Amino acid sequence: MREDDAPEARQEPRGARRAGGGGSRLDRWVDAYAQRTRGMTASEIRALFAVASRPEVVSLAGGMPFLSALPLDVVGEALARLVAERGTVALQYGSGQGDPDLREKIIDVMAPQQVNAHPDDVVVTTGSQQALDLVTRIFVDPGDVVLAEAPSYVGALGVFRAYQADVVHVPLDDDGLVPEALEAALERLAAAGRRVKLLYTVPNHHNPAGVTLSAERRPRIVEIARRYRVLVLEDDPYGLLGFDGDPLPSLHSRDPESVVYLGSFSKTFAPGFRVGWAVAPHAVREKLVLASEAAILCPSAFSQLAVATYLEDHDWKHQVGVFRDLYRERAGATLDALADMVPTARWTTPHGGFYVWVTLPDGLDATAMLPRAVTERVAYVPGTAFYADGHGRQSLRLSYCYPTSDRIREGIRRLATVIEAETELLTTFGPAGRPRPSGASHPGLASPGPDLT
Amino acid sequence: MREDDAPEARQEPRGARRAGGGGSRLDRWVDAYAQRTRGMTASEIRALFAVASRPEVVSLAGGMPFLSALPLDVVGEALARLVAERGTVALQYGSGQGDPDLREKIIDVMAPQQVNAHPDDVVVTTGSQQALDLVTRIFVDPGDVVLAEAPSYVGALGVFRAYQADVVHVPLDDDGLVPEALEAALERLAAAGRRVKLLYTVPNHHNPAGVTLSAERRPRIVEIARRYRVLVLEDDPYGLLGFDGDPLPSLHSRDPESVVYLGSFSKTFAPGFRVGWAVAPHAVREKLVLASEAAILCPSAFSQLAVATYLEDHDWKHQVGVFRDLYRERAGATLDALADMVPTARWTTPHGGFYVWVTLPDGLDATAMLPRAVTERVAYVPGTAFYADGHGRQSLRLSYCYPTSDRIREGIRRLATVIEAETELLTTFGPAGRPRPSGASHPGLASPGPDLT
Repeated sequence: MREDDAPEARQEPRGARRAGGGGSRLDRWVDAYAQRTRGMTASEIRALFAVASRPEVVSLAGGMPFLSALPLDVVGEALARLVAERGTVALQYGSGQGDPDLREKIIDVMAPQQVNAHPDDVVVTTGSQQALDLVTRIFVDPGDVVLAEAPSYVGALGVFRAYQADVVHVPLDDDGLVPEALEAALERLAAAGRRVKLLYTVPNHHNPAGVTLSAERRPRIVEIARRYRVLVLEDDPYGLLGFDGDPLPSLHSRDPESVVYLGSFSKTFAPGFRVGWAVAPHAVREKLVLASEAAILCPSAFSQLAVATYLEDHDWKHQVGVFRDLYRERAGATLDALADMVPTARWTTPHGGFYVWVTLPDGLDATAMLPRAVTERVAYVPGTAFYADGHGRQSLRLSYCYPTSDRIREGIRRLATVIEAETELLTTFGPAGRPRPSGASHPGLASPGPDLT
Repeated sequence: MREDDAPEARQEPRGARRAGGGGSRLDRWVDAYAQRTRGMTASEIRALFAVASRPEVVSLAGGMPFLSALPLDVVGEALARLVAERGTVALQYGSGQGDPDLREKIIDVMAPQQVNAHPDDVVVTTGSQQALDLVTRIFVDPGDVVLAEAPSYVGALGVFRAYQADVVHVPLDDDGLVPEALEAALERLAAAGRRVKLLYTVPNHHNPAGVTLSAERRPRIVEIARRYRVLVLEDDPYGLLGFDGDPLPSLHSRDPESVVYLGSFSKTFAPGFRVGWAVAPHAVREKLVLASEAAILCPSAFSQLAVATYLEDHDWKHQVGVFRDLYRERAGATLDALADMVPTARWTTPHGGFYVWVTLPDGLDATAMLPRAVTERVAYVPGTAFYADGHGRQSLRLSYCYPTSDRIREGIRRLATVIEAETELLTTFGPAGRPRPSGASHPGLASPGPDLT
């Protein structure tokens, strides 16, 4: 079927779209959407990322793991055996909570972070994104407050927005979420009579900030949340990808009744299966299962058995080590290139994971600069994507997980050119030459799309 | 880890659960759940179905396709090739809307139902259950009305409940949804000032009723919905599984701007991949993609490429024919056995799909009878599961998709014994001996679990 045969091409004359709105003028259903749908609009940077996916662009934007490091032949053969030998189970409906064998194996995967749980406490989800959705679904009424780090994972902000939560950001520094700031925020919100339902945190190798919550702060964070009766949502996709030594004990290990722990195979094995999980207190877990059954009936049996087979047959810990070495080298290349070529900026020093958080020289605006960067064939995610409140314009996230070290250096060389040009413009014309949208425009309210995870 | 080491075993003394409530007395979060979570309780029949899954029980309850009819070796080899040759794509994140190649192939799959669409109109979902969830998410505010057939698919009722919709049932008969009844309901609701957002319907080989909407009624249903400005949600997992002749034209084909069409590979290929889809008007489709990205980031690339590979390499139409022949034979066995052994009941005559809807003799209660049936080693789903308003006690759903014809006959023989015994009890003690819960108990509000699809 040709593009111009499509019903919308026939029925919507050119220019009929309502400027700025999510629906077109001819959307017959524009008055029928739910309240929660009003904030759902595609971000302006979405179009840019379509350009950024061209091969000539060095993308330091996406959070895609480097899958060429996987033994694809071995994985393929294992899947063929799985279907031939256990196909009537692997291709069938399964339990809403997830495959019992996989849930047992997940207990082992979490051992380094000291998440002590029983397989009954685990709910398998369609990526840990679905776990985020389900936890928010069962806890958050419109107008409830969710606390999140400043900055915070863009995909989590999207979920909180979808359930009409008010996100209140709490500062982090090089040691992660700041306990004093958390307590101050909770006190302020309590005084204002606000209901705080969740504290969302990525303690290990933070997305996007690249920092890790220190061992000293972990018990304090849990204690404060517990005192204010706020459930901690501990999102830990990068826990096993630390460059030096063992992971720190999870927040969950301090108080399993106060924490829902989220894990994922997307960064340690492969995101294409969409297998993540939640570990939750008993009563919460029961509700998560019911909510998941309403949302998807059951997670993919095939994906779950594929992951279980991989964990069983393959030395997955060695493979995680391979990924870790690869990402360590690329992080080093990123930090060296920044030091060599962008000395006027500041950045965090990741000890694991995928990301460096870069703060530009005063007066520069990473959101406004992005089209210029893409023209220079380098892409990043502007900091505003990671705030629900319009902050973050001076910052950006660099991902070093996917491009090779050479490409990373080339990308940062291009970025340095752009920053230099922007700085010159600023010196010549002053900050007045570059108008900033007001905080009220809430750029965080737009969905930047899944390629930014 | 042993069961009694689990945190909840340590912290929750026996008997501490609050009777009847969803949370236990010691659920620290019992006051923190969202409004929408209050109705989420596990159904009482859930425990029964754990028993019913024992091999000695003939289960006429589940809607599991008969996967032994698939060429598992061939499927397995194709997946091995997929990973070896395209693993870095198949195991990676993908687009929120779904793989473009699969979306093109879906257009062909829908051709027999005359769903005329462009690949851009298709959103791939984690089973069509997720599509149900997403459509409800973007349209339904708490208290909005959703119209559904009486009876209706249990999984859809679960979604509507999760979004706090008020489900209003509209009668169907042997020709499907009754247009006059639809119009009367809409008029009544309009007069009462109620906001009706969706008409949910399964026009082909209805789950659970086993009937098909007649050709004559199809344009009338669409016209009425359009006149009252109600979006039609056409759920069509069984459309290709008709026993005689071509499928009737979809409701979508009458007015693509008024209908969201849902399809699934769960019944024509395999549910274990969890691949379904929605075809929606342009503006609606955009919002579905944004909602899906918030819910799961993107559907499984692996599952999508697995299905696309199967459609490409394999004569999938022939395979659908194999399934169709198999289910035709089993439907015949079911109807014959009912005529032979349960002459006091009435039932529908399916011309495709998986289900027969049986109405018991007056005075009998399928919900109350279920424990007795399971004791006699036969399981079904009581009719109450398919109503949001407590109706359906005199009816039950039989699924003939999974057991062989011999097992079906044996199951119905056992069922006949139970019905006979119940009828005798009724004759001896009268209906007063069997108290009926009032309609206010809303058994439909409990989730019966995913094994009932």
